[in-house]
Amino acid sequence: MKKHDQDFMKRQNRLTVFEIIKNQHPISRASIAKQTGMSPTTVSRIVGELTEQGYLLNSDQVSAGLGRKSTLLGMVNASVLSVGVDLDRSLMSIGIVDLQGKLVCGSKYPRIPDESPETTLIRISEAIEQLMQQQEIDRTRIVGIGVGLPGIVNNEEGIVVFSVQLGWKNVKLAERLKELNGFDIAVDNELKVRALAEHLKGAAFGSRRTALLGFGHGVGSAIILEGEIYRGVMNSAGEIGHTTVDPSGMMCDCGKAGCLQTYINISSLLSEANRIRPIGTIEELFEAKRAGEHWAIHLIDRALMYMAITINNVVCMYNPDSVILSGELVDKFPDIHDEVEKIYLSRFLWEPLRDSFTFHRSMLNERGVMIGSGLLSQNRFFALE
Amino acid sequence: MKKHDQDFMKRQNRLTVFEIIKNQHPISRASIAKQTGMSPTTVSRIVGELTEQGYLLNSDQVSAGLGRKSTLLGMVNASVLSVGVDLDRSLMSIGIVDLQGKLVCGSKYPRIPDESPETTLIRISEAIEQLMQQQEIDRTRIVGIGVGLPGIVNNEEGIVVFSVQLGWKNVKLAERLKELNGFDIAVDNELKVRALAEHLKGAAFGSRRTALLGFGHGVGSAIILEGEIYRGVMNSAGEIGHTTVDPSGMMCDCGKAGCLQTYINISSLLSEANRIRPIGTIEELFEAKRAGEHWAIHLIDRALMYMAITINNVVCMYNPDSVILSGELVDKFPDIHDEVEKIYLSRFLWEPLRDSFTFHRSMLNERGVMIGSGLLSQNRFFALE
Repeated sequence: MKKHDQDFMKRQNRLTVFEIIKNQHPISRASIAKQTGMSPTTVSRIVGELTEQGYLLNSDQVSAGLGRKSTLLGMVNASVLSVGVDLDRSLMSIGIVDLQGKLVCGSKYPRIPDESPETTLIRISEAIEQLMQQQEIDRTRIVGIGVGLPGIVNNEEGIVVFSVQLGWKNVKLAERLKELNGFDIAVDNELKVRALAEHLKGAAFGSRRTALLGFGHGVGSAIILEGEIYRGVMNSAGEIGHTTVDPSGMMCDCGKAGCLQTYINISSLLSEANRIRPIGTIEELFEAKRAGEHWAIHLIDRALMYMAITINNVVCMYNPDSVILSGELVDKFPDIHDEVEKIYLSRFLWEPLRDSFTFHRSMLNERGVMIGSGLLSQNRFFALE
Repeated sequence: MKKHDQDFMKRQNRLTVFEIIKNQHPISRASIAKQTGMSPTTVSRIVGELTEQGYLLNSDQVSAGLGRKSTLLGMVNASVLSVGVDLDRSLMSIGIVDLQGKLVCGSKYPRIPDESPETTLIRISEAIEQLMQQQEIDRTRIVGIGVGLPGIVNNEEGIVVFSVQLGWKNVKLAERLKELNGFDIAVDNELKVRALAEHLKGAAFGSRRTALLGFGHGVGSAIILEGEIYRGVMNSAGEIGHTTVDPSGMMCDCGKAGCLQTYINISSLLSEANRIRPIGTIEELFEAKRAGEHWAIHLIDRALMYMAITINNVVCMYNPDSVILSGELVDKFPDIHDEVEKIYLSRFLWEPLRDSFTFHRSMLNERGVMIGSGLLSQNRFFALE
């Protein structure tokens, strides 16, 4: 067995023990050993580590029945907290998340769009300290910080490879933020952590395979399989915005023609609208549609049609049991959910998969990325990630 | 811990022990316990089961070094074999596959396209008996039979839900074939087992995330993640043939317009060709192109363009490290590989993923489904599936 595999097995064993205690406490060491097939020595070592780190305690209860009485293990209440950061172009939301994915507290901070990484990270670090002080949270209870942001993220090394929205390239976010405040840092793409949150604690609770779609300033998707983010080899799986849906279509900012996002995202819609007359915001465009302006009806209907096509294509390729709509367009115009559903049901859904999935609105909305980032940080701590 | 989870853990433990012995034999029980953290009791129970079943033996070697000498465990040579069946419309290929994925022997049998499931299964069963006799293979060494076929398969229950090519609907293949010959039966979609074979023993050996594309009578894909087939909730993941690539496109036999397969698959190409002049086979169509007939150049170039688009879309959505081209079109016209590569590199690949994957021809070709089905059967036996 290679070193790598042995480490993997150790992490798996640790996670297994923690999950059993979390779900069955109070419980005896012997019962854990019996359930898992692990040796008493292995169980004791793991329990010892977790106790030393303050997550477990020896409860007052002892095991029932015949035989030698043994002390049962319990969880330390609220022993595990993490910080979730939703880092976007002009807004940062920072919250403290518990084991159940609940926000203990949270706050919003404006961000200047062309702020340097260094300034942003210092401000995040200060905001977290302030939050812990205000809420009187012992910093030893925080197991780490998760940061979700738009762009391509190297999640293993905690590097922001490229983010158009933040204007960042190759920023060693995890390394720098850890220098600033000492916590372990997990970084990921915002849609991936949002999907994780909806899968574990939101609209797709109970789902085994969740696909989340984001329609807003970008177009993207994220997939969760049995609690785990489906990443692909470069953490880029789900980049549906750059799938080609029309080889004779419009130019995309990526340099290709006919990318899906050219039909849906906010900047494309505004740029198309401005061929007709000056339109400054997406609200103005939808207002023009409501006023019956034909060009606006055509433009928005085309976007809705491509959203419906996207549902079919995502369902055909990932075969999820739940599909969740999210993103600024859907948050601002919630009717989109029902309209898109009508379109894909009547025209675009492949018949054999008609009953294979449920279609949801996001449930966590603007809290999704914060909660997902916090959960990601906890998962990493407990060695799932 | 639920019953389900305990069973899962038992299967996982058994597989872990078997994998360690397979890769490190001769090895002692103590070393297995140390590497895995399992108790000596658990290791002994699993080793006992595997020995009783004839897969392991106590080798003549004993452990080196100080301390109590212990007998080392070895593998019984060629102890594990399985049968792989490639079941297609007019041809059945049946082979015996060893632990390394090598074909010990194999044979082909014609099939009458409208043959009933019962007739086909009886013929498969007889062919397997004959093969074992001819090769003097002890039937106790066969751990099971895998069957790969085109169509939608419920792999958990071994039911062919729907296969246009075979003309079958809701056929309880696994149940009936097991009645006929007593072996454990695994059934799956042909592209999924072909991808498994190429991932484990073929063109994508060493890959962690493999995407295989099939271009032939249908258009489909299959994804393997770290040795496991990515199935989705209905075992339908990868059905790229019915993704919509042009809402104003041609009608597909599924009842939707503009499905990807209408631009690529053999029957669509022939039906389009026959708008111009009578064309009976795909070879005639490619001959017309070589002869410089403009309509044929246009038709085939369009197909190649959509194949290139498919590469980009699959790479964006699954972010694999290897992409493999397979299927009748590629087998008959191998130049397609290089032509498609040229097109996607120059026009359709999203720049950030340019270096994220390698692009391969199928290596196992017409043996792929047989080998993959055999490996699937072994995986299931060793509790991986």
